[in-house]
Amino acid sequence: KVAGQPLEMEEVEVAPPRAHEVRIKILCTSLCHTDVTFWRLKGFPPRHPSILGHEAAGVVESVGDHVHEVAVGDTVVPVFLAQCGDCPDCLSDRSNICSGLPAGRPGMPRDGTTRFSFAATGEPINNFLGVSSFTEYTVVDVAHVVRLDPGVPPEKACLLSCGVSTGIGAAWKVAAVEPGSSVAVFGLGAVGLAVAQGCRMRGAKRIIGVDLNPEKRDIGKRLGITDFINPNDIGERTVSEVVKEMTGGGADYCFECIGSTSVMAEAFQSSRKGWGKTVVLGVSNGVAPMSIPSHDILMGRSVVGSLFGGLKPKADIPILAQ
Amino acid sequence: KVAGQPLEMEEVEVAPPRAHEVRIKILCTSLCHTDVTFWRLKGFPPRHPSILGHEAAGVVESVGDHVHEVAVGDTVVPVFLAQCGDCPDCLSDRSNICSGLPAGRPGMPRDGTTRFSFAATGEPINNFLGVSSFTEYTVVDVAHVVRLDPGVPPEKACLLSCGVSTGIGAAWKVAAVEPGSSVAVFGLGAVGLAVAQGCRMRGAKRIIGVDLNPEKRDIGKRLGITDFINPNDIGERTVSEVVKEMTGGGADYCFECIGSTSVMAEAFQSSRKGWGKTVVLGVSNGVAPMSIPSHDILMGRSVVGSLFGGLKPKADIPILAQ
Repeated sequence: KVAGQPLEMEEVEVAPPRAHEVRIKILCTSLCHTDVTFWRLKGFPPRHPSILGHEAAGVVESVGDHVHEVAVGDTVVPVFLAQCGDCPDCLSDRSNICSGLPAGRPGMPRDGTTRFSFAATGEPINNFLGVSSFTEYTVVDVAHVVRLDPGVPPEKACLLSCGVSTGIGAAWKVAAVEPGSSVAVFGLGAVGLAVAQGCRMRGAKRIIGVDLNPEKRDIGKRLGITDFINPNDIGERTVSEVVKEMTGGGADYCFECIGSTSVMAEAFQSSRKGWGKTVVLGVSNGVAPMSIPSHDILMGRSVVGSLFGGLKPKADIPILAQ
Repeated sequence: KVAGQPLEMEEVEVAPPRAHEVRIKILCTSLCHTDVTFWRLKGFPPRHPSILGHEAAGVVESVGDHVHEVAVGDTVVPVFLAQCGDCPDCLSDRSNICSGLPAGRPGMPRDGTTRFSFAATGEPINNFLGVSSFTEYTVVDVAHVVRLDPGVPPEKACLLSCGVSTGIGAAWKVAAVEPGSSVAVFGLGAVGLAVAQGCRMRGAKRIIGVDLNPEKRDIGKRLGITDFINPNDIGERTVSEVVKEMTGGGADYCFECIGSTSVMAEAFQSSRKGWGKTVVLGVSNGVAPMSIPSHDILMGRSVVGSLFGGLKPKADIPILAQ
């Protein structure tokens, strides 16, 4: 109910879907660090009380008018990023940031209202990122819904709703990692581990994982990393110095999967001159900007950011599910 | 002789070229703002006294051992960026930052010595950017020399030695501007005007020039800009607000041709979400980094830097000359 205060279990009413909306019975939902970031975030437009959660899989319970894309009983994943299909961004191969239904507003995307209310008082509860999955039933705009083959197990489909898609997409669509490349992955949470998997699938030769948690070494190796750097174990050296030493000058691709602007700067410094590309995936909860020395970027380096790994949800999630 | 102090005319000795070197009679040389930046720069490794100038055209006067690529009498342009032809960067399509003969050292690239000395005292004079063209004769490593068709007039060939190549290359190789694109060019000096020309050649539809000097409006229009913004004439609004208004959300490509980190940030803010790319060309003389809000880059934007417009001198200057 209040930024940064403990979540509470509440009895809620979930109104039926209106036009272009889908009511979904949630089968699985997981916790993404972005839920935590937004839970803590103060000073934003008032979004509390709200129902957090945006990584989920479920079954369509009912649909509103003008919904033809999914039907009752379909297996679906809701996604925080809309794909309206009609705007210049949805019609372009180069963007996945729908401008028809921009992300991040506190209500339903088309009319700004919410379908949630407290059962006891009727007081409205805000929607979160167009999804709100920490509930038995949610209502989502059809532009935020992706239909999947019913054979995909819900606990796996759920991960395609955000973190795993974001990581694999970053390696596949944003970086377009080539066989034989060297990469460095900063932060081995769900997103970073998925980046490692994606890089392995793309044929990267050297995949360096960077994490403060020593337990990430083993899980990272199972998912594709070939080398592990714990910043606590390298003495006076910086991570970028170690990456440059391991790769003979810097990684071809660096991925920031934490949301720390100082790590973004370190990732950038770890990238190779000439063509090194730094991909920013992490959502920062601060206002400090990323800081890049202009002399270093002049040496042919680049930085690119993306949401949802540059994927178009409706086109690409079914491919990942396969 | 001293950083920031007036240049002096001096009688100098220019020793014959050693192995892999070429002595060039300079026919034309022009002033690039980077000469001014380095002239003023203090606190660098000692480079003064030096002979500035790095944008020139000339004729080969003599060659050292192992020089087979050019011969006495050839029309050539020297270039600050080497192309050794053998290093991983020269062998890759993705980089033009030669790692065999890195740029920016104060002497000849292969042995660190200089061919220049004061005629009166014999005291050595440093080379500048591997070129040193403010002299009747200079000695340049063959990796820094591009042979041109003798029919190319020296006063035009000269411009291909740095500024015009940098600008056209940025539009052509770094941004790869598509027909119908919108672009914003920050700073309409030689480089910015060449960017405008390059964007016009690539079929850009809207080319917005930004400069504080009102005289740049007319010259800019002759070279391709379709719209002009003078930051002094837009009241309380920022340039990025005006660019976003003109383009319906931001330019597809933004080029920073000044070397100001605050202009780099403004260029970035002028780029469209989803796919907007900011190309940094200007060489900053300060240490302040470029500052990029991480939330804005997450919306599918990118920043890329380049030297010499991403061109491979020996391959691409002859194409531009044609």
